[in-house]
Amino acid sequence: MISENGYVLIIYKDKRYFKKIEAGKSFHGIGGVINFSELIGIDYGVRYGSYEIYEPTLEDVIMYGLRRETQIVYPKEAYHICFKLNIRNGSRICEVGAGSGGLTCIFSRMVGPEGRVVTFEKEERHYKNSQKNILRFVEWNNVDLRQGDIMDFDENDFDAAFIDIREPWLILDKVRSFIRKSAYLGIIVPTANQIIETLHALNSGFGDIEVMELMLRRYKTIPERVRPEDRMVAHTGFLIFARKLGD
Amino acid sequence: MISENGYVLIIYKDKRYFKKIEAGKSFHGIGGVINFSELIGIDYGVRYGSYEIYEPTLEDVIMYGLRRETQIVYPKEAYHICFKLNIRNGSRICEVGAGSGGLTCIFSRMVGPEGRVVTFEKEERHYKNSQKNILRFVEWNNVDLRQGDIMDFDENDFDAAFIDIREPWLILDKVRSFIRKSAYLGIIVPTANQIIETLHALNSGFGDIEVMELMLRRYKTIPERVRPEDRMVAHTGFLIFARKLGD
Amino acid sequence: MISENGYVLIIYKDKRYFKKIEAGKSFHGIGGVINFSELIGIDYGVRYGSYEIYEPTLEDVIMYGLRRETQIVYPKEAYHICFKLNIRNGSRICEVGAGSGGLTCIFSRMVGPEGRVVTFEKEERHYKNSQKNILRFVEWNNVDLRQGDIMDFDENDFDAAFIDIREPWLILDKVRSFIRKSAYLGIIVPTANQIIETLHALNSGFGDIEVMELMLRRYKTIPERVRPEDRMVAHTGFLIFARKLGD
Amino acid sequence: MISENGYVLIIYKDKRYFKKIEAGKSFHGIGGVINFSELIGIDYGVRYGSYEIYEPTLEDVIMYGLRRETQIVYPKEAYHICFKLNIRNGSRICEVGAGSGGLTCIFSRMVGPEGRVVTFEKEERHYKNSQKNILRFVEWNNVDLRQGDIMDFDENDFDAAFIDIREPWLILDKVRSFIRKSAYLGIIVPTANQIIETLHALNSGFGDIEVMELMLRRYKTIPERVRPEDRMVAHTGFLIFARKLGD
Repeated sequence: MISENGYVLIIYKDKRYFKKIEAGKSFHGIGGVINFSELIGIDYGVRYGSYEIYEPTLEDVIMYGLRRETQIVYPKEAYHICFKLNIRNGSRICEVGAGSGGLTCIFSRMVGPEGRVVTFEKEERHYKNSQKNILRFVEWNNVDLRQGDIMDFDENDFDAAFIDIREPWLILDKVRSFIRKSAYLGIIVPTANQIIETLHALNSGFGDIEVMELMLRRYKTIPERVRPEDRMVAHTGFLIFARKLGD
Repeated sequence: MISENGYVLIIYKDKRYFKKIEAGKSFHGIGGVINFSELIGIDYGVRYGSYEIYEPTLEDVIMYGLRRETQIVYPKEAYHICFKLNIRNGSRICEVGAGSGGLTCIFSRMVGPEGRVVTFEKEERHYKNSQKNILRFVEWNNVDLRQGDIMDFDENDFDAAFIDIREPWLILDKVRSFIRKSAYLGIIVPTANQIIETLHALNSGFGDIEVMELMLRRYKTIPERVRPEDRMVAHTGFLIFARKLGD
Repeated sequence: MISENGYVLIIYKDKRYFKKIEAGKSFHGIGGVINFSELIGIDYGVRYGSYEIYEPTLEDVIMYGLRRETQIVYPKEAYHICFKLNIRNGSRICEVGAGSGGLTCIFSRMVGPEGRVVTFEKEERHYKNSQKNILRFVEWNNVDLRQGDIMDFDENDFDAAFIDIREPWLILDKVRSFIRKSAYLGIIVPTANQIIETLHALNSGFGDIEVMELMLRRYKTIPERVRPEDRMVAHTGFLIFARKLGD
Repeated sequence: MISENGYVLIIYKDKRYFKKIEAGKSFHGIGGVINFSELIGIDYGVRYGSYEIYEPTLEDVIMYGLRRETQIVYPKEAYHICFKLNIRNGSRICEVGAGSGGLTCIFSRMVGPEGRVVTFEKEERHYKNSQKNILRFVEWNNVDLRQGDIMDFDENDFDAAFIDIREPWLILDKVRSFIRKSAYLGIIVPTANQIIETLHALNSGFGDIEVMELMLRRYKTIPERVRPEDRMVAHTGFLIFARKLGD
């Protein structure tokens, strides 16, 4: 049920709007006006004039709700990362580079109320923005956002770690010391040069190294003319995975 | 720590073996013999001769542990489906076509101990095989596997539904009645012909229809010669998503 | 050497301009003014202020010179078609659906001065536009553009045929009668529905049927940050090929 | 018409055989025996028992006829290269790294009887093998195969050049001196590391630099179940193109 101060996803043809429902306010779009007071108390999943109004999923939050100050990890990679890192109810996860906090929100959902996500962000500006996003969208109180350089921290026994910074090769040994044996390390980098540097730095303390990319291709949905969309996102990042091997 | 009757993933170069640790038994591979009694009590994440031995992740279970009697939903699609359906701790999920039970295991992990996965399988043979896989690999007692035709059941208020049967268009209205408004329906089909049939059948009771496919491209991991693998899996299935619109 | 009334390709960063050199005229772009009179008599392959000026290739002509009134067959498909159809110096080629005449220009180049391209166009508007493009850009007098429905013509012994119309399945028998045994037929269609219809219609008079698509992925060219472009053309058309089998 | 000492392409289901027709000889395959004497004098494009017999195209020659001692440039890239380099009837083309001579055969066809292909090969073994392939399959006497290091040769005014050697960056200046201004240079390399090295070396003597890769995705051809093939060739090489800028 749509409630005051809750969020809605409004769809009009190809356009999507992520909005907070405040009584007395309204939405003015090319499909007409939506008076928010009329929505309060009715079910999500409803047509309103030429709009469709849904309960936002976590993907909607990441794509349309998050305030972005950095390049984000897109859902298609985020989902793959979560499972590859074997994150589950109760996991303790370390993230280096909170960025805008989008992946943090996804990790938070995956580990559930009993789990824990510790995330490091060096840049004050990104720290503050991700803090706001996390406070606004995280479902459980299970995120520990820390400002600073991971090299100044000591942790251990994490169930997995993920790195999203420009030079992951500089912190591989440190992050390795944070995670338990057999645990997965995941890394995202946009360029082939960074893959090369990272592979050079992944020494014998890691095994089962994988490098991959995911491509999502969308299709038009008119049943008489099924065909791929004309254009697609061709690149977001390369994913690198490895598992910690004991000393 | 590796325990008796637990599972291990053994890696030798490109080969992966999923094994149960039974005292007194051993593994004979091209990298030599592993005496399982020697592994009991030591940590996962260890080299043993030229092998690497890890704690199996859920992906390892699906790919190498599951007994397959059907085409499975591969991890890359499974992960995407979980998030697209907005599955979280405590969700109630409906699956039509348990198949070999792999996706069921993934749904089970996602909904956690407080959630519920109800899965339907018509074929007795697949029902029995998926039952074995689920008993063996599901982490919580949250799966309800039912043998029979979904048309003979009545349910409601599911948080999401997923269909993996040959003719999804025949059961769309039924499945729609199972889920709450705004909830996601997901479908996987291998052919363009099935996309066309399904799109024709997705009537005004659903909105926000999407069709997509995911491609996973792997890269070689030698830092001096970074390049995509020569061959790749080019197709596993097309994904169709839609959200329920109220009457 | 750049000559009066010849063409040039002007590049400024990511922008490309195809221009005719007329004395006394000039080009005004965001990189500044180019006085065409200054270009006449100098070599192609030259910097002019912040511009680069090249001799247009056939790809430049198709992409930037052609006046388009239809969706064109893009170079990446056109090149593949030419070789798949085994077109060579002296070949006689039949094209159904001249469109804007771009593929006709490419066929014309492939068959050379001794070859022949017969191309059919039903729509008067497209016929007139393709005629202009062909007159302007074809290198040899080897194209025979005909207005009308291919069903009203009789031809034989073509070395290959290509169809680019909405319903290729309606003319397969006719086109088959135009080509010699063992010759290739090529077809381009944008949708999966059209693939299905065409495959249904490709009877026993054809063998070695293939369906394929080509994807071109571009990379950024900064050596310190090699990575795929963010976005790409995801779909232009599906290609269908078959070879004529004798009666 | 099939003639003695000519070639045929024999297709049986997914299998393709490239054979020379010698009277008195026969072909023994899983589809039965073909007595070659029976084929002489009949038309190509014919069923013979459960076989189909076609006139080989240049693609058939490259894929099934060529004796390969090196990794070849595959047709999908070869076709794109030919047009990108703007090769036409009468062009003079320089190729560095003849390899097995496959691309040389394609260039030879493109330039026609009035054109010229000069190709350099350092390795004696590859030189001899490519020589055999060229003698056997080239359609016109327009290929000049030279054994040796391109650094020891001096040429000029080529209309385009193509490099297929391990370290193209070492010969860029030399090759640049061989081609006329505005002419295209094309390069193929398998790894990202080589892209990086080559881009570093492509100095101000070249403009309009492009890096790209082509992916060919095949579809199954059963009209009731149209879908991509399960597996595909995921990588053959990266293509780099640039145009010569004058001094």
